[in-house]
Amino acid sequence: MTARILVMPGDGVGPEICREAVRVLEALASDHGLDIELEEALVGGAAIDAEGVPLPESSLTAARAADAILFGSIGGPKWDDQPRDNRPESGLLRLRSELGLFANLRPAILYPQLAHVSALKRDIVSGLDIMIVRELTGGIYFGKPAGRHMNANGKREAFNTMRYDEDEIRRIGRAAFDIARARGGRLCSVDKANVLDVSQLWRDVMTELHAEYEDIELTHMYVDNAAMQLVRAPKQFDTLVTGNLFGDVLSDAAAMLTGSIGMLPSASMDTNGKGLYEPVHGSAPDIAGQGVANPLATILSVAMMLRYTLDRGDLADKVENAVGYALDRGLRTRDIMDDETQMASTQEIGGAIVDML
Amino acid sequence: MTARILVMPGDGVGPEICREAVRVLEALASDHGLDIELEEALVGGAAIDAEGVPLPESSLTAARAADAILFGSIGGPKWDDQPRDNRPESGLLRLRSELGLFANLRPAILYPQLAHVSALKRDIVSGLDIMIVRELTGGIYFGKPAGRHMNANGKREAFNTMRYDEDEIRRIGRAAFDIARARGGRLCSVDKANVLDVSQLWRDVMTELHAEYEDIELTHMYVDNAAMQLVRAPKQFDTLVTGNLFGDVLSDAAAMLTGSIGMLPSASMDTNGKGLYEPVHGSAPDIAGQGVANPLATILSVAMMLRYTLDRGDLADKVENAVGYALDRGLRTRDIMDDETQMASTQEIGGAIVDML
Ligand SMILES: CC(C)[C@H](C(=O)O)[C@@H](O)C(=O)O
Ligand SMILES: CC(C)[C@H](C(=O)O)[C@@H](O)C(=O)O
Repeated sequence: MTARILVMPGDGVGPEICREAVRVLEALASDHGLDIELEEALVGGAAIDAEGVPLPESSLTAARAADAILFGSIGGPKWDDQPRDNRPESGLLRLRSELGLFANLRPAILYPQLAHVSALKRDIVSGLDIMIVRELTGGIYFGKPAGRHMNANGKREAFNTMRYDEDEIRRIGRAAFDIARARGGRLCSVDKANVLDVSQLWRDVMTELHAEYEDIELTHMYVDNAAMQLVRAPKQFDTLVTGNLFGDVLSDAAAMLTGSIGMLPSASMDTNGKGLYEPVHGSAPDIAGQGVANPLATILSVAMMLRYTLDRGDLADKVENAVGYALDRGLRTRDIMDDETQMASTQEIGGAIVDML
Repeated sequence: MTARILVMPGDGVGPEICREAVRVLEALASDHGLDIELEEALVGGAAIDAEGVPLPESSLTAARAADAILFGSIGGPKWDDQPRDNRPESGLLRLRSELGLFANLRPAILYPQLAHVSALKRDIVSGLDIMIVRELTGGIYFGKPAGRHMNANGKREAFNTMRYDEDEIRRIGRAAFDIARARGGRLCSVDKANVLDVSQLWRDVMTELHAEYEDIELTHMYVDNAAMQLVRAPKQFDTLVTGNLFGDVLSDAAAMLTGSIGMLPSASMDTNGKGLYEPVHGSAPDIAGQGVANPLATILSVAMMLRYTLDRGDLADKVENAVGYALDRGLRTRDIMDDETQMASTQEIGGAIVDML
């Protein structure tokens, strides 16, 4: 059956990095029997400019119909004055919520060829391979009530609600235990149970769920300590699972440990294996259109798509190996370059990967 | 006028590190005319053991009467089974709230003598000197409603409220702008205004307040990006200001950048200059009672007390210089030792500081 892939390039460097990832998909289709059909839709600032909203109904309809989404990046100073519920980010948040993409997988992997670009000492990060599983459709991002009003003293007051029910926690917990089982067998659940009621329930449900996964080691850690441990000794972790807000912060910190955020992909999955795949980095408006953006995070997001949605782990391996070879050959975009390597453009990197496939 | 100082040693290594800090205070009293009166009170697990609650009324009364509090550390596995509102941590949270200690100052400073213990490369962290100003009596730590119930589907559900009003934001904002002015003149306000209503109000109020502090550079950063930037290039920051939860996570990450969390003090201040002073590190129950804990974070907390509450910046300088000399002489507790330095006990370090004063 032909898989329908929707490409949503978005803003900033989004279009140019998606272009290279699409070349990779097309090469796999023509040379390796990948059966796909590609479509494109507007999202983010590009959609605001064209249709006034960050997620037009036509884009949402196309996203619902797709089996997988390749997402570029969104946002930029141009749309900073939009009211919050019409900003580029809202388009992405609505997409996650409407499609039920509750499981956000964020690997933080250090490529041995790039160990030197990390801000951390080599022995602290060499061989780093962490998977952060972040709940993506609940918590304080979507909790009601939320808003702003005048309080009894006539002062402006604003509030958000961090809320989880046991089903939401169990669902992301299962996803995380399954992933931990396919990896190193160790899961660390991160919360703030010494302060937050919602974290106490989180911890209770994770502990209950552990009964179904007795072969997996489950530990609990407070979020402040997790932030410290990621800096102090990140290799102690295998798989981490946490809520939406904590996951936002910790996964970015973990990504930056590698020093090469231009290399890191992510997947956001629903319960049926449908996923949205996007680089961890942002839209980098300052370098957009110059052909210097690193397309590898997006190309590696294609690898995740092949593995998790398209059931083509064989092709995912091929793509990941091609990325490894490109690094071995010293090809680098500006963000990960050093004295001994060769600066290549966005397009040259994409071309090199396609050639190697 | 005699200043009343309440010592609350707490649990784990708390008593032994407070003992050394008290020796420092006593030496300043006898040799440098510091006019103080010391008292002691129970808090945390020690208070649970003795009186059944983590903050007995007698301790709270003594804390109210004191001009400054020297706080050790609290918590440990022994009290893990306490219901959340009777855990050691609740004693500290209640103390912060009842005393109105809204401004939490957390310096992250790298001592040049200890640059090698950081997990980060030397050039990334050498000379690091950041001040994180964390709001401490509001936000999701104290927001109502909070709790757990059965929802309409008969499922357990839990929730907390992140809430700030403009007065609370302005109050911590003023404290932070004042601190930035006494430092490098740059303030970065950290929020999640692209997602949270409460962060949008935070950003609005900080921006309004900036009109009163035109000599200070104000920037805004999202919390996920701040977590990344702290790892990537921490020296870009001078003073950071943020809410209670974000401050909890970021200040611990920042502290760990130095690699020597046993060296970092903190202050929690009310509007009148009264303060609670405590090391950033926890109670470390695994090493309690062995005489190996690093007392320097607590001794440096005394220096903060001298500077911010007791108005004796001259003595604060003396204490900080003494700590510097001790490091120069190669004296180290186990946590910051290396091949070229000499292992000293908690008490030996305390004694060395006292001798140098
Ligand atoms: C753009 C923003 C709303 C988003 C988030 O906070 O989830 C981003 O930071 C991310 O992590 O994907
Ligand atoms: C012990 C805990 C409640 C506390 C907090 O979260 O504020 C601690 O982590 C801190 O930062 O002082």
